[in-house]
This record gives sequence, structure tokens and C-alpha cells, in this order.
Amino acid sequence: MDKLKGFRDFYPEEMRQRRRIFNVCREVSRLFGYEEISFPSIEPLELFRVKSGDQILDQTYSFRDKGARELTLIPEATPSVSRMLAERKDLPRPVRWFSLEKYWRYEEPQAGRTREFYQYNGDLFGPYSELADAEIIGLAGSILDNLGLGGKYEFHVSHRKLMENILLKLGAPRPADVLPVIDRFHKIPESASVEKLEQAGIRSDGLDTLVRMLKARVNLETVDSFLGNAGLDIAGLPEVEWLKMVGMLLKPYSVKNVIFDASIVRGFAYYTGTVFEAFDLHEENRAILGGGRYDNLVSVISGTSIPAIGFGMGDVVLELVMKASGVWTATEGELIAAVCFASEDCVTYALDLASQLRKHGIPALISPESRSLSSQMKDASRHGARFALIVGEKEKERGTVTVKRMSDGSQKTVTIGEAITVLTGELNHSGE
Amino acid sequence: MDKLKGFRDFYPEEMRQRRRIFNVCREVSRLFGYEEISFPSIEPLELFRVKSGDQILDQTYSFRDKGARELTLIPEATPSVSRMLAERKDLPRPVRWFSLEKYWRYEEPQAGRTREFYQYNGDLFGPYSELADAEIIGLAGSILDNLGLGGKYEFHVSHRKLMENILLKLGAPRPADVLPVIDRFHKIPESASVEKLEQAGIRSDGLDTLVRMLKARVNLETVDSFLGNAGLDIAGLPEVEWLKMVGMLLKPYSVKNVIFDASIVRGFAYYTGTVFEAFDLHEENRAILGGGRYDNLVSVISGTSIPAIGFGMGDVVLELVMKASGVWTATEGELIAAVCFASEDCVTYALDLASQLRKHGIPALISPESRSLSSQMKDASRHGARFALIVGEKEKERGTVTVKRMSDGSQKTVTIGEAITVLTGELNHSGE
Repeated sequence: MDKLKGFRDFYPEEMRQRRRIFNVCREVSRLFGYEEISFPSIEPLELFRVKSGDQILDQTYSFRDKGARELTLIPEATPSVSRMLAERKDLPRPVRWFSLEKYWRYEEPQAGRTREFYQYNGDLFGPYSELADAEIIGLAGSILDNLGLGGKYEFHVSHRKLMENILLKLGAPRPADVLPVIDRFHKIPESASVEKLEQAGIRSDGLDTLVRMLKARVNLETVDSFLGNAGLDIAGLPEVEWLKMVGMLLKPYSVKNVIFDASIVRGFAYYTGTVFEAFDLHEENRAILGGGRYDNLVSVISGTSIPAIGFGMGDVVLELVMKASGVWTATEGELIAAVCFASEDCVTYALDLASQLRKHGIPALISPESRSLSSQMKDASRHGARFALIVGEKEKERGTVTVKRMSDGSQKTVTIGEAITVLTGELNHSGE
Repeated sequence: MDKLKGFRDFYPEEMRQRRRIFNVCREVSRLFGYEEISFPSIEPLELFRVKSGDQILDQTYSFRDKGARELTLIPEATPSVSRMLAERKDLPRPVRWFSLEKYWRYEEPQAGRTREFYQYNGDLFGPYSELADAEIIGLAGSILDNLGLGGKYEFHVSHRKLMENILLKLGAPRPADVLPVIDRFHKIPESASVEKLEQAGIRSDGLDTLVRMLKARVNLETVDSFLGNAGLDIAGLPEVEWLKMVGMLLKPYSVKNVIFDASIVRGFAYYTGTVFEAFDLHEENRAILGGGRYDNLVSVISGTSIPAIGFGMGDVVLELVMKASGVWTATEGELIAAVCFASEDCVTYALDLASQLRKHGIPALISPESRSLSSQMKDASRHGARFALIVGEKEKERGTVTVKRMSDGSQKTVTIGEAITVLTGELNHSGE
């Protein structure tokens, strides 16, 4: 009986890596003052209708429960996080939250895409400021750095309102309708994009300028001079200064390589300001994470307006990028003591020894069957134990244990207290 | 827009407790040599059909996907864990696995029961032995002890096959059909149970004996003499010796209070041997966790027979029990440094200071808005910061910072290096 297509099992060796990544996300969040929250995996479908845009609704696992309510497995975090925030008006602002949850999307599985995935989300509620935008991007960058990806990624930043205003100035009557064309600019032939932009109302004298802008990559701090030089009329567009300031405020953070990329719009309908993605600099050039400012979503859900910015990072692309960058390293096997008993008469003594080791923080296995000492030793080796702790009649009588180092076979009979001292030293030495 | 009934949001203060519990589960598992796995939250409904018993099927969140496949949100772990094991015949036995996942059941929510819950599961595959049974119960007890529940719970142990054999000896032609009656023995009036037992074929001369047996509580190590004295013909029932041996092997583990309770049968159809539950000793007497031996399940799923024993512990009852026992303690607020800047000119200096603190493992907040120093100080206090690190023009020029202890208002201007030393000392002192 197989698991479903697009779903994953994680065996211990894979789970160790994922646990390490989750721990890094949690630790960096803590250092930035972000607190963990959690929310239901099933929500009323209504919560995602309108808010997320149509595309994602086609991709949800939705169903009716026995009470005929329309439910969905959550495809993303932001609506749930916003709902939680709206319910707690008493919290001191700013509110800094993160979450690490599973999500589900009914999409065709492919490299970098599964139907079930984990995602980290970080959100900052309250401030409407360049400082807030820089903090969220700084947090995202710091997580990537601590995962070992420092210098291997690039942040691409743009601004929803800036793009809409530029499109308006270039002749598009409904700028929001043009954003999907821009979103796909790098995915389809340029001529096809140009045709769609013309259809959307972009004046022919502005087409070249727009295409040049969409292809440009400039340092975020120089976005103002770039746009001015490109022949765009940016007079009266405060978003240009905003982006420039975000670029400047990012300097004290560890994140480097922050560039303006007008082709970044992000899929969700709810973004209102700064939008960004981090791309790996490897040949595949995948988007590792993405986010943006969504100042109206909490208001749509609850009627209370609260500015917000956040980002999400899924585990599937992250794993690909970390593997390509050589930082998806296997953790070393843990120090494990395997307690082996020479006869059934020593079982209780052996179990007692194992209990004492665990009380001292030393992982200890013991054979769950009465097997020959040599079988137990073989098992200890196959499970990667660093030490076999052998007890027989003699050890039991004297309160001792024979400690055998598996790597070189050397062994020594010592008191239980001495054995604990040796293993504890080994434990600290290995940094665990 | 509300969340669904029977589902929970976890705000930071609640999530901290849950995270602490998860950490204890993971740490104790590691000490026992159990490795974490994970599996899909959606599985083919077929995986749970037959295996779990009918009751649970009525309680699943099941639906058809866009490809008309019958799917279900997982209501329990064991079928998925067994499927994973069956797919990896190469793993060295014994296999020790644990998981910490969300599960869903469409039941009426009540105290101790939600529709979505977390559950810890620990399983030991390979050995068919009393040692294995004792290890799993020992693991379960050690988790409870490390959660602060030591001495506040009691393990109730029985044996499926033993009960079936006794029921057969007492006249029931299909003992498996009588188990649900026994399962409900303590939940309905005794006379109603007796009537159902008679209907199931229990001979009238055995009814009294059976009822006495179902009401008894004896030390697991004395189960043989108890059953003999109770007038039951236990000749040729190896399960009696098995249970007695499990009781003896549990002595070296930290778990105390292990008793024989014939009324324990467990709901799932797949159990084959030892079954157990841990009850809290508080007045409510709730079952905190439960498990048992299921030697045929892997074979039903994969054709390969592998003995197995495991248990599950949900977070909902655990929370109630921990609260009633006074060990659902709030963790102290974290040491947090709030960096406050006197003017916009110092923002970059302040951000840089925050980055340096984080690099040294010190959680650091900084206001994401340009606000007055007094507003920033007020925010720092409301967020529970232990120190405010104030920077102005003077500090920026001299590379210093004014460190203010929030509890007593004392302050001192020092170099950044000195500030880091002070805060690191504070951090280590608080044991974080």
C-alpha cells in the first residue's frame, strides 16, 4: 500500500536534516524577538477566498465536512496568521510572530514542488515603515546565512504600488491586471510579453522603457537614479524613496546582494507594498523564499486595519538549494552506548545501568531480546554505537561494567560511576 | 471570521508550553535510542480500513480528491508507521522510531478532546519479547517523569490474548466480540455490563469471577497468583507469565505503580498482546496515554510479518493533567535586549548593535518605527525586555552604549564589547 503521489515519508536520516533546519529557523527567530504561534491545518474555505487570489483556490485540498461546511487544508499561512492577530487586539505592538507548519496544494508534483510541504513564516505586525521591511528581509537573510547559504543567494526587491503607478503612467487603465503579465515576464518569450503589455494598454512609446526596466538588476540603494535615468517619470512616487531607504537600512544586517528587480510581483493578491524574493545564485536560480507587505489583509478579515509584512520559505526548494550548495550535510551519528548482557541473570543489572546512563544524558540502547553477547555486539555496531557496555556475572557482583570502544576494540572494566564519567566526557567532547 | 469548532490556535504563551513538552519528548526519545520519523498527513483511506476498527473510520475527515481517490486526514499514527517500516526491509532491527504529528478526528469536542490534536508515538519493531514491552512502557513512563508527572500516574496493563483465552474458557464462543463490552465496563452500570456478558455467552457460574477480575487492581508482578486465587483456570496460558515478567523487567525503569487491570482492552482492532494505559492519579483519573503490541499489522499492510509494540500520547489530555498537577508551568520571559535610538541619525548604529548582539546569541529587539525614546522604552518594558540599550549621538561617536536594567532603572554607559559581556553573563546566569 503506497503513500500518495506528491507526499513524502521522512526516515530518521532525512528527519535529522529537517529537524536541524527547523532548529535554525527557531533559534534565529528567537534572536530577532519573533515568537512561535500555531493554527489549525483546516480552515473555512472562505478565509482563503478573495484574500489569496484565484490561482491558489484551484490548488487547495477542499472538501465539505459532515456538517456540509466548505473546508480546506491550509495552502498558506498569511490568512490564518492575520485571523489570529485580529482576534487579539490586546497584544502589545509591534507583534513579531513566526510559524513552522505543514501546507497542502493540489498541484502537479515536480522538482521543487510537492503536494504537502513544510513552510516557515515570519511576520511583523504594526509598523508601516522602511525599518520594518528591512527587519523582515534581514530576518530572512539571517536564517539563510545560519543554514550555511551565506553569499549564495540574492534578494530581489520591488514594490507593488510603485509598479502599479508606473504602469498607470505608461497608459495601462487597470494596472492590477497587468501584474500577472509582469510576473510571467521571465518565463515566456519577450515578444509574447510585449504583445500582452500592448493589449493591456501600455503606450507604444513606453514599451521599450518598461521592458528595459523589467530586465534591469540594480542595487536597491540606487533605484532612484536608475529609474530617473531610464526615462521614467518618477516624480511624486514616494515608493522610490521607500525602496531606496529599505536598501540603506539593510546594511547593518548580514544580508548582502539586495537588488531592485521590477519583475518581482508575487502571486498573492493581498500584497500592497514592498515585495521580495531570495534567489539562489546557483545555476538553477530558484526562488528560495518570498514575501511582502500586506497592509489591508487584517482589515479584510476583521475590519481592523493593521499594517503587516512577512515572508514564507518552503522546505522543498530549500532542500534542493542546500543540496546544490553542499550544505545539506549529514549530521554525525550520535554517541550511543549499547548495553550488552552476557546472560539472562544480568538483565536487570543491565537495564538499571541503561537507566542510569540516560539520567546522565547519555543515549543508551539495550537489546530488547535475550540474544547471545556476540549478536548484541553486532547489533551495537550496526546501530552506530560508539561504546558497548558489557555486563556479565562478574560485573554484576562487583558493580562494574566493561567499556569497549567500538572503533578500536579497546576495553576496560570500571565502576559504573567511572563509566558515566568517561561517556559524559566523550559526549561533551563531541559537542552534543 | 472564526476558526472551526474543535480546533485550536496557539498564541506564543501557549506555544511555548507545547514546545517545551515536544522538546522533552524528543530528548527522552533520544536517550532511549528512538529516532524521529515523519509521514504524510493525508493517506489513502484504505490504509485505515480494516486495520483500525470501524469506530475510527466513522470519525475520520475523509474526502475524494480531484482524481476521485478516497483520502483521509490521518486519525492515528500506527498504520502509517507500519507502512513506512514495511517499505524499508534493509533497516537494522530492532527499529526504534518516534513521531510527533498532528491528527484529526471528527468527534464531538469536549474537555480532553479536540478535532485536531498533536500526538507523540513511540514504536519498537522487531523483537517479540517481554523486554521490548518493558522498554516501551519504560519510555512512556520516563517521558511522563520528565514532564514533571513522576508519582502522579499509574500504568494499567493487560493482555489481549489472555483476555480472549479467559473469555473462551468462560464460555464466550467469539471472545473478540466481548472485548468492546469489557472496554466499556467502567463506563456503564455494572448490571448492564453483566447482561451484555451473559448475552455474549459467558456461563453464569463464571460471571461473578469475571466481574471480580474486571474490578481488581493488583501489582503486575503478582498477576499469576491473583488469577489463580480468583478461581480462574489459567493453566496453559503463557500470557500470565509474560505479564508477570514485564512487571519484573520494569523495575529498573523509573516508572512505578504498574498494575494489572483486566478492563484495559484499547479501542484499536489490531492489538495482539500486551495492552496498557497510563492514568493520572488525580481525581479525574484520565488516560494520559495508551498502547500495545500489534504483531500482525505490518503483515496485513505488506505481507511481511514483524512484531511491534508502541504507544501514543495526545497533547489535549496531557495538558489537562499537567495543569491539574500544577506542572504546566509558564516559562520565564526570555532575556531580551531592546535597542532604543535617540534620533534617526543613530538608526544604523542601533541596527548594527542589534546585529552584533544576535551574533553573540542575545535576543535583541529594535523598534521598527522612528518613535520617541520614551515610547521605545515603554515598548521595551511591555515586551518584557530585561535591558534597554540606548544609543544617541554621543554613544554613536564614541562606540558606546547606555545599558539600562529595566527592573531597577540603573544604567551605565559602556563599550559595545563590555555590553555584550554583561548580557552574555546574564544569559548564562539565567540558564538559557
